[in-house]
Amino acid sequence: MSDRKKTTIVLFSGDYDKTMAAYIIANGAAAYDHEVTIFHTFWGLNALRKDTQVPVNKGFLEKMFGKMMPRGADKMRLSKMHFAGMGPKMIKQVMKKHNALSLPQLVEMAQEQEVKLIACTMTMDLLGLQKEELLDGLDYAGVAAYIGDAEEGNVNLFI
Amino acid sequence: MSDRKKTTIVLFSGDYDKTMAAYIIANGAAAYDHEVTIFHTFWGLNALRKDTQVPVNKGFLEKMFGKMMPRGADKMRLSKMHFAGMGPKMIKQVMKKHNALSLPQLVEMAQEQEVKLIACTMTMDLLGLQKEELLDGLDYAGVAAYIGDAEEGNVNLFI
Amino acid sequence: MSDRKKTTIVLFSGDYDKTMAAYIIANGAAAYDHEVTIFHTFWGLNALRKDTQVPVNKGFLEKMFGKMMPRGADKMRLSKMHFAGMGPKMIKQVMKKHNALSLPQLVEMAQEQEVKLIACTMTMDLLGLQKEELLDGLDYAGVAAYIGDAEEGNVNLFI
Repeated sequence: MSDRKKTTIVLFSGDYDKTMAAYIIANGAAAYDHEVTIFHTFWGLNALRKDTQVPVNKGFLEKMFGKMMPRGADKMRLSKMHFAGMGPKMIKQVMKKHNALSLPQLVEMAQEQEVKLIACTMTMDLLGLQKEELLDGLDYAGVAAYIGDAEEGNVNLFI
Repeated sequence: MSDRKKTTIVLFSGDYDKTMAAYIIANGAAAYDHEVTIFHTFWGLNALRKDTQVPVNKGFLEKMFGKMMPRGADKMRLSKMHFAGMGPKMIKQVMKKHNALSLPQLVEMAQEQEVKLIACTMTMDLLGLQKEELLDGLDYAGVAAYIGDAEEGNVNLFI
Repeated sequence: MSDRKKTTIVLFSGDYDKTMAAYIIANGAAAYDHEVTIFHTFWGLNALRKDTQVPVNKGFLEKMFGKMMPRGADKMRLSKMHFAGMGPKMIKQVMKKHNALSLPQLVEMAQEQEVKLIACTMTMDLLGLQKEELLDGLDYAGVAAYIGDAEEGNVNLFI
C-alpha cells in the first residue's frame, strides 16, 4: 500500500472549469495507480452537494449561504466572469459534441476509482452545510488529516 | 533541523477567503511541526500591509496602486464577485458566531508559530510597496529563495 | 539527467498576472538547473496563441471561442476584475519603468532556457484550437504525460 504514489488535491474553488480540471487530474492519477485524495474546502464543497433541496434545520445565515451557493457540480459557474452566462453553456455544448465527460460524470468516475473525497468539516460548520445535503460515500475531516496525507504526497495541488 | 517536514506556500491571491485557506494550512502544518514558509507575491502582499497609512515618498503610479489595493488582511475581498459586498460581511459574521479566528488573528498565530513570512521584493518594487508599510518581523526575498525552499518541500502549494 | 530537480506547473489560468507568476517561477527554477515543464490547459493555452489570426477551418462554436479568448500573452487580462481596464496598462507601465520583462519576453526566455512548454491536447480539442494557431516549438500531450512528469517532481504547482 505505502509504495503507491500519492496525489492530493485541495479543491478550494467552486468554479465549473477548475473543478473539472481537478477531477480530470484526479481520475488520471487514479488510472496510473496513485492513491488520490481530493480535500474539498470552502466553495469546493459545492461540487459535493446533492442537486435537490434537503430539508434540514438551519439558522438564517446558513440558509442564506445555502441559497446563494450552487447545488451540486452541474450548477457551478465558470471562473471567467466575462464568459458567464454564455460560457458554461458553450463549454457543456462542446463537451457533449466531443463526448467528453460532464462534471457530475467525472465525480462519479472518481468515486468508482476509489478517489477519496473528503469534505472539510470546518467549512461545513462555517457555511452551515450538513451531511444529509452532501453526496453519499464521502469522508469527513479537517486540515490535520490533509497535512497528514499531503506530507506523503508526490503530487500536491491547490486548485 | 533538516529532518523536519517542509511546507511552502506561494500566496499570490489577494482574496480574503483564499488567504484564510493559506494561513489555515500554514498554521496546521506548523502545528504538525513542519517548517513553513509563505512567500507573498503580487496581490498576496496585501495581507502583510499595515492597516494604517504610512507616510512614504512615492511616484504617481505607486501611489495609485497603494490607494487601489486593500490595506491589510482585514480589508481584503472575497474571490467570488457575486458575493462581494454581502459576502465578506456574512463570512466574518459566521466566523465570529463559530468562534473561528479572523484573518488578522491567523496571521498573528502564524508569526507566533514561527511560520516564515516572506515578502517578494520584486513585487514590492513593481507595486511601489516599502518595508515601512508592511508588518514587522517579515523576511524579504526573491524567486531564487523560493525555489531553494520549495525544492526541499514536502507540501508545495500555489494559492 | 535524472538527478536534476524537477519543477512542473499546470497553467490553467488565462490571467496576465498569474501567467507572469508562472513564467517567473519557471524561469527561476530553470536558472537553478531544474528540469521545468509548464502544462498549459484550459485558459492557460491562450498564453501560447500566436498574436495574429491564422486561417483555419473551424465549426461555429470553435470560432466563437477563438474570438472570445485573448490571442497571445500580450492580450491577457488581470485576475482582479476591479482593476480591469486600468490594471493591465498600469502593470505594463510599471514593468517598463522597472525594466521588468514583459510576459511575451518571459515566454521567449523560457523557450531559450529549454523549459518544456506543453499544450494540453484535450483542451485544444474542446476549444477548437489548432497547432497552426499556437507558437512554434511546443510539445503536445494529455493528462497522462502530466502525471508522469509530476510524480517525479520536486516542485509541483497548479496556477
